[in-house]
Amino acid sequence: MDLTNITSPSFLKNLDKKELEHLAQDIRTFLIEKCSITGGHIGPNLGVVELTIMLHKLFDSPKDKFLWDVGHQAYVHKILTGRANQFDTLRQFKGLCGFPKRVESEHDEWETGHSSTSLSAAMGMAAARDIKNEKNFVLPIIGDGALTGGMALEALNHIGHAKTNMIVILNDNEMSIAPNVGALHSVLGRLRTAKEYSKAKEELESLMHKIPVLGGKLASTAERVKDSLKYLVVSGVFFEELGFKYLGPIDGHDFDALETTLLHAKKVKGPVLVHVITKKGKGYQPAESDTVGTWHGTGPYKIENGAFVKSEAKGPAWSSLIAETVRKVAHQDERIVTITPAMPVGSKLQGIQQDFPNRFFDVGIAEQHAATMSAGLATQKMKPFLAIYSTFLQRAYDQVLHDIARPNLNVFIGIDRAGLVGADGETHQGVFDIAFLRSLPNMTIMMPKDENEGQHMVKTALDYEDGPIALRYPRGNGIGVPLDEELTVLPIGSWEVLREGQDAAILTFGTTIPMALKAADLLAKQGIEVEVVNARFIKPMDEEMLHRLLTSRKPILTIEEAVLTGGFGSGVLEFAHDHGYLQALIDRIGIPDQFIEHGDVDQLLEEIHVTAEDTVARMHVLLQQKQQVGLKNV
Amino acid sequence: MDLTNITSPSFLKNLDKKELEHLAQDIRTFLIEKCSITGGHIGPNLGVVELTIMLHKLFDSPKDKFLWDVGHQAYVHKILTGRANQFDTLRQFKGLCGFPKRVESEHDEWETGHSSTSLSAAMGMAAARDIKNEKNFVLPIIGDGALTGGMALEALNHIGHAKTNMIVILNDNEMSIAPNVGALHSVLGRLRTAKEYSKAKEELESLMHKIPVLGGKLASTAERVKDSLKYLVVSGVFFEELGFKYLGPIDGHDFDALETTLLHAKKVKGPVLVHVITKKGKGYQPAESDTVGTWHGTGPYKIENGAFVKSEAKGPAWSSLIAETVRKVAHQDERIVTITPAMPVGSKLQGIQQDFPNRFFDVGIAEQHAATMSAGLATQKMKPFLAIYSTFLQRAYDQVLHDIARPNLNVFIGIDRAGLVGADGETHQGVFDIAFLRSLPNMTIMMPKDENEGQHMVKTALDYEDGPIALRYPRGNGIGVPLDEELTVLPIGSWEVLREGQDAAILTFGTTIPMALKAADLLAKQGIEVEVVNARFIKPMDEEMLHRLLTSRKPILTIEEAVLTGGFGSGVLEFAHDHGYLQALIDRIGIPDQFIEHGDVDQLLEEIHVTAEDTVARMHVLLQQKQQVGLKNV
Repeated sequence: MDLTNITSPSFLKNLDKKELEHLAQDIRTFLIEKCSITGGHIGPNLGVVELTIMLHKLFDSPKDKFLWDVGHQAYVHKILTGRANQFDTLRQFKGLCGFPKRVESEHDEWETGHSSTSLSAAMGMAAARDIKNEKNFVLPIIGDGALTGGMALEALNHIGHAKTNMIVILNDNEMSIAPNVGALHSVLGRLRTAKEYSKAKEELESLMHKIPVLGGKLASTAERVKDSLKYLVVSGVFFEELGFKYLGPIDGHDFDALETTLLHAKKVKGPVLVHVITKKGKGYQPAESDTVGTWHGTGPYKIENGAFVKSEAKGPAWSSLIAETVRKVAHQDERIVTITPAMPVGSKLQGIQQDFPNRFFDVGIAEQHAATMSAGLATQKMKPFLAIYSTFLQRAYDQVLHDIARPNLNVFIGIDRAGLVGADGETHQGVFDIAFLRSLPNMTIMMPKDENEGQHMVKTALDYEDGPIALRYPRGNGIGVPLDEELTVLPIGSWEVLREGQDAAILTFGTTIPMALKAADLLAKQGIEVEVVNARFIKPMDEEMLHRLLTSRKPILTIEEAVLTGGFGSGVLEFAHDHGYLQALIDRIGIPDQFIEHGDVDQLLEEIHVTAEDTVARMHVLLQQKQQVGLKNV
Repeated sequence: MDLTNITSPSFLKNLDKKELEHLAQDIRTFLIEKCSITGGHIGPNLGVVELTIMLHKLFDSPKDKFLWDVGHQAYVHKILTGRANQFDTLRQFKGLCGFPKRVESEHDEWETGHSSTSLSAAMGMAAARDIKNEKNFVLPIIGDGALTGGMALEALNHIGHAKTNMIVILNDNEMSIAPNVGALHSVLGRLRTAKEYSKAKEELESLMHKIPVLGGKLASTAERVKDSLKYLVVSGVFFEELGFKYLGPIDGHDFDALETTLLHAKKVKGPVLVHVITKKGKGYQPAESDTVGTWHGTGPYKIENGAFVKSEAKGPAWSSLIAETVRKVAHQDERIVTITPAMPVGSKLQGIQQDFPNRFFDVGIAEQHAATMSAGLATQKMKPFLAIYSTFLQRAYDQVLHDIARPNLNVFIGIDRAGLVGADGETHQGVFDIAFLRSLPNMTIMMPKDENEGQHMVKTALDYEDGPIALRYPRGNGIGVPLDEELTVLPIGSWEVLREGQDAAILTFGTTIPMALKAADLLAKQGIEVEVVNARFIKPMDEEMLHRLLTSRKPILTIEEAVLTGGFGSGVLEFAHDHGYLQALIDRIGIPDQFIEHGDVDQLLEEIHVTAEDTVARMHVLLQQKQQVGLKNV
């Protein structure tokens, strides 16, 4: 069928199994084709085609609430709720969001992006329903990876205790982004192989019947024996212990099994967990045979063979550059231990994992644990490298504050995907870390201008022994500069003049340096000579250079690809006023006080006026102001 | 014995049971006496006397690592490691810290204050040990309340999977601070009553032996039956499922049981969890009979009857004032739902709980879940009041950002204990929330000048329907102003002039307002007239008033009991520069870039130069600077 004709999921009610299977096929073909052009989270979505169809058939969205945990698996849901015609714009500027989005549809009541939030939100929705005495079903759909996030476990603990009516769909594909780890994963593994136990159950029950003569002796323990048998019969003892009724495991690609079990779940009082086994990438061979997570989310690819369309990057991927430098140094320094919260692929840590299997820890989706485990390692004089995306570091804010910065432990935090990330959009932009880390005492924060400086910063961080040190690096690739053979240690808090200029100064770091240099070129053509400073240490700042600049009374423009409120530029303002620099002319360019949606990074920067042209314009204003006041350079 | 003579725990090795019991008695007497004068966490410490003694007898600290989760139960440990002579200074300025502290002793390798960190840190320490091929025991001691914190569950999941050698002591006193909640609590409850099952186990084993004729039939299911029996035999199925060997439950006040079980635990390969049942307040009747958490941490009390020494507060406790106002409004507004992460007592929510049992949720120590559950409620047009201490809100930073502020949901965050908290020290100071909340788009932040404004702010927050709104209120009591009968709604972003003055302006809010008014009085005596502004909205600020002040060219001094980096004063700097106010003379007073230790709040403020006298001195400098530049008021 033409999926773009769908306006509401109600048409599903009347489809028979054969029609459902055709629909599933149509959706797969559609997704494979659309994502081959736009890129996207193709793997997870191919895995939930039948599950999503059956959910929409058996329940009534938006009255019944679907909460898609993480949310990258909501494409099928978007198609079935009337958004197929927007897939050409998927994850593009002003286009369809790659995650559930409240403004897009009444069917997206819960917005996501980060993992493990669905159960807590579902508890809130269910509580509201019960307070208002309304009737509806609340259905969080959560992956086995997301289930290991601490907040999901907090929620399980609460929901199971409160006995709230809720149907939790555990979408078990044995992967989070990378293959899953953790004891819970083993619990699920045992459940997956539990089918053979149904026979055992029957045999044991028959056994119990055959020994009535012993009944008397068993009287005092009968209850306990029954309890014990429950574990045998039910299998989902872990979830039963937490107060959930456990149903499953069932094949998530079998419409009949899904229908039977979900109808059963509808009748259960209290919380029920339906264990659904799905296959990531189902129905598209290249994605289906992926074992490491390459097909979790992709760029464009060729449908016929799954070959990825190569980007024309000049330099190495930033994640690789940083990880491979750590790997190199780790061969010389036995103290170095790498920790990742479920991102061995994204953070390009496979080389480290291979060379140092016992000094590498993938702890699963568990950012809090990852940060504090790093602190524990540091107390024992190890040198932990915590590789974590900026947006996910938000999950470990208190751990960085309370367990790392406060006791001033030597943890090297590699902040991957710092700055705007583009297509993943507002839940994933790495733009808050400067504001939230800068206010922590003992914290050092740096960002390199290019990959060569990046590798020296890795060395700097690994050599640093005076507390936590964070190295921010962006999504994407370096600019293609040659790499020095020898790694050197940068003086902490040192900035670098990239271009001289007497009329004004631009202070910036990382990805916005090329923009600043371009602006300086444009201004030079207009006869204005601007100094450009690589402010590579965001904290501590280069106080000597700041004193020089402020004493000279040059107007200063700061640029950062991060939130302005409390950001780097605010640090410069603070410094100027703390040191009594009267009449300091300082202006700041960066991300305004709003969440930034998805889209191409350059488009986004243009939208928020962070461009070379904006820099030129703002510099003109600053220079005019200087004239108005009648200040002269010293 | 004289406990102040103890210099190391090694003396314990030679004590017999009778001597241990005498020692336990001496420690209890000591603690009850000392805490009656200084106040402190008397309840938790009385509960772990025997446990701590036996740990130090059977293990070798500091080679073996004790990690005291939360850490308020480490007094006995401090006594046994040579710090009894410092208890007169407990929790006082420059005195003994109420939590483990690395600088105090080599026996305090893991610092705490916040809950649920010990397992992650222990995993780090154990990993370091194994990498270095060293031999020692790592023993996190964690309460049943702390175990429900998400990061502890993340850690369990990792440790059980990694099979790391570790002895987890589960100190189960059925309380966190308040009585515990959650499904895990029920799991533990079932285990506590499991002693009767030991008989069942024997009977069933005998049964299995008596039915060999059926052996053949059982062959295929033998393994599964064994597994099933394991649940019967072991009882700790929840922990066994997660990969831990479970030992217990044992009586934590019985030296023999502790010794036998801990010696057993020493021999276990892989992670083992020892379930120890203790009684909070053991041996001191007033504390022992506490059922709500009053004796968790206390101020001074009379030993003979446990009567608390009344403080001479003029106004109501801030927590009460805020909670009781919410309670009042909740009688008019059925949308209001209160959520607390295990702080019904601390946040004084018992009245709300009593009046609205189905609109009140104590979710246990689970700040992340509490925040996102609030978001879920808000999506359903409820009005959640999330009551949470500033320091614990840090745990929910990402949830506030990603789940509340980003989708702009109407959640009222009551930030209790905002500002310096005093005796609990650097892990508990509520001084980061302004810096970390101010940089979030959509966020409104306010703090009242007194309890009357506080109650109006509660009304303002509950009426507000344009996104999240946070109301900060300090630890301790109000200043004793009369309360208006009628609640009114304050205009969002409106400041208030408390005192006129033409020469300069002080902008401040909350607890530092009396200090500012005092400074203004002192300055007036010197002929300097200073305007004092109640900047009660930290975000958004009163732009009209800022324009007026900046246009007038009055020097501006900001004061805040919060970190300066990225704080309120930085917001004023940002505003001035964003709006092109050249030559704005602005200086900021607040908490410098360092962690602030424990002590009396007034002493701490003096130490960091946040006093009326410092304000006067800084104002003089500002006015001198103004003269230097030759600026005139407009």
